[in-house]
Amino acid sequence: MASYDVLCIGNAIVDIIAQCDEAFLEANGIIKGAMNLIDTERAELLYSRMGPAIEASGGSAGNTAAGVASFGGRAAFFGKVSRDPLGAIYTHDIRAQGVAFDTKPLDGTPPTARSMIFVTPDGERSMNTYLGACVELGPEDVEPDKAAGAKVTYFEGYLWDPPRAKEAIRLTAKHAHAAGREVSMTLSDPFCVDRYRDEFLDLMRSGTVDIVFANAHELKSLYQTSSFDAALAAIRKDCRLAAVTRSEEGSVIVRGDETVEIKAIEIDRLVDTTGAGDLYAAGFLFGYTSGLGLRQCGDLGSLAAGLVIQQIGPRPHKNLRIEAEQAGLL
Amino acid sequence: MASYDVLCIGNAIVDIIAQCDEAFLEANGIIKGAMNLIDTERAELLYSRMGPAIEASGGSAGNTAAGVASFGGRAAFFGKVSRDPLGAIYTHDIRAQGVAFDTKPLDGTPPTARSMIFVTPDGERSMNTYLGACVELGPEDVEPDKAAGAKVTYFEGYLWDPPRAKEAIRLTAKHAHAAGREVSMTLSDPFCVDRYRDEFLDLMRSGTVDIVFANAHELKSLYQTSSFDAALAAIRKDCRLAAVTRSEEGSVIVRGDETVEIKAIEIDRLVDTTGAGDLYAAGFLFGYTSGLGLRQCGDLGSLAAGLVIQQIGPRPHKNLRIEAEQAGLL
Repeated sequence: MASYDVLCIGNAIVDIIAQCDEAFLEANGIIKGAMNLIDTERAELLYSRMGPAIEASGGSAGNTAAGVASFGGRAAFFGKVSRDPLGAIYTHDIRAQGVAFDTKPLDGTPPTARSMIFVTPDGERSMNTYLGACVELGPEDVEPDKAAGAKVTYFEGYLWDPPRAKEAIRLTAKHAHAAGREVSMTLSDPFCVDRYRDEFLDLMRSGTVDIVFANAHELKSLYQTSSFDAALAAIRKDCRLAAVTRSEEGSVIVRGDETVEIKAIEIDRLVDTTGAGDLYAAGFLFGYTSGLGLRQCGDLGSLAAGLVIQQIGPRPHKNLRIEAEQAGLL
Repeated sequence: MASYDVLCIGNAIVDIIAQCDEAFLEANGIIKGAMNLIDTERAELLYSRMGPAIEASGGSAGNTAAGVASFGGRAAFFGKVSRDPLGAIYTHDIRAQGVAFDTKPLDGTPPTARSMIFVTPDGERSMNTYLGACVELGPEDVEPDKAAGAKVTYFEGYLWDPPRAKEAIRLTAKHAHAAGREVSMTLSDPFCVDRYRDEFLDLMRSGTVDIVFANAHELKSLYQTSSFDAALAAIRKDCRLAAVTRSEEGSVIVRGDETVEIKAIEIDRLVDTTGAGDLYAAGFLFGYTSGLGLRQCGDLGSLAAGLVIQQIGPRPHKNLRIEAEQAGLL
């Protein structure tokens, strides 16, 4: 029997979230809607220009792990923090959500990663990430029992940015497949796809990755096409199962010849899109590892994504199991 | 001409905010709705039991300073942080809001203060405050130019908890009154009033304090009566001007024989009462230092308080000047 439903692997990041107007992004050369990697110096400059902020644990796969746990799933996480106050906050939050998190922290240097997230009036988030301690994640951080004991391993494409995390991913995938488990990834960001396109395609085509999560921009970036349909046809061949999100148009799930179209949930007010994709994956993977059908998996993803974009911050303030039950999905 | 509209003095605290149910408060001996002072050991224990949280700069008078600045007022703040990551967050947030904050930080020990705030489903907040660096605030932190140059100085009754902050208050009040300025305070918390009743009454009766902010619970605690009317009659004699908030029943302002009743604004959904009193004081003092009448001061207070309780965290996410203009108050 599996010990965990979902093992997530990702950059362990504390988000620093503030509002700004469109002009601020332009004046500071921040690519809107993207994850911009920054160094210490630029982090200091941007922080000095940032408005009053709030802090919340984040990081793509960490958000997904928190989401799975909020649905009542058994989640684990690999990711690197430092032994510093932000690392303590990160560790507290993910464990308090019920996620098993035991990756050894660094002894203070480099510090725990943070991402300055600017939210524009349209709710779109533009991220500026200083990777800090994340650059030290490596194969020595793979816990074989968790890698072999989780029904699905899920990792973020962002892990191709730090130097040795990809080795941890390949080792985890090896343990997982040897135990008959499945491996999934998110393409993370269109620019991230652009940096690592060939490697991502190889992960899929070599069978290292079984299930792919992407949004429409990332999918089109992967296949360098402006045609969503062409990109969807391509990924259908390249992996066993793919779930592609399309913002307010919902999502499309493809598996072989099968296609399932999922609606987005209706929302009252779009506040902050941070975490939308992460929480879609959480809902989907909770459903998938619970043995539910693809439509139900997609609906759970839509629900979790729809809830997280109506609040500030990337992890759901509401209990997702209760919300799903009230929505008649569980 | 005054250099500042409002100088605020208070404990410089980063809030750590999580939701909990009523049973949690009882099981952990937390007095609901109150500010509970805690030591390091209890802070660690409560944090280990706390759910996933978010962090936001807080502290009563700091919130008021941020509110005044959000209305477009010129605000300054005295308060003690440490040179550590939470202190950096606190300093960033208050300065980014436009508040002049130059109190010298401690060199790391004790660390920056934090308050674990548990929000129950009814929106009520119960605070658990570790004072940390705040215990070192003293008269050496008074900047005479700001004390003499602000139209109104505002401080929190909570400052009677750390050992030497009261000396800073008395010195500031001396500078302020010598320059013909006014001094105001908030009674902060019914239990705080209970700890320092005689001293608070002496501050008012000796003329050290001209203007008092309180909620109904604090006012009744001050005069040890269950009758709101009796307490209101008493404070009318003890200070020149008092503004007493009554949650959803609005507020009452008394000055000599004059009485002004103010309505609360209608709200969509009560989320988190943290900062309600602080933001009422911000709106009131912004109006007061702008030379507006008492009714307009009270309405600005109601607006700011009503907005902050519809969000998580104690400082307004919205620009209060724009909100006040849209509400026809400015």
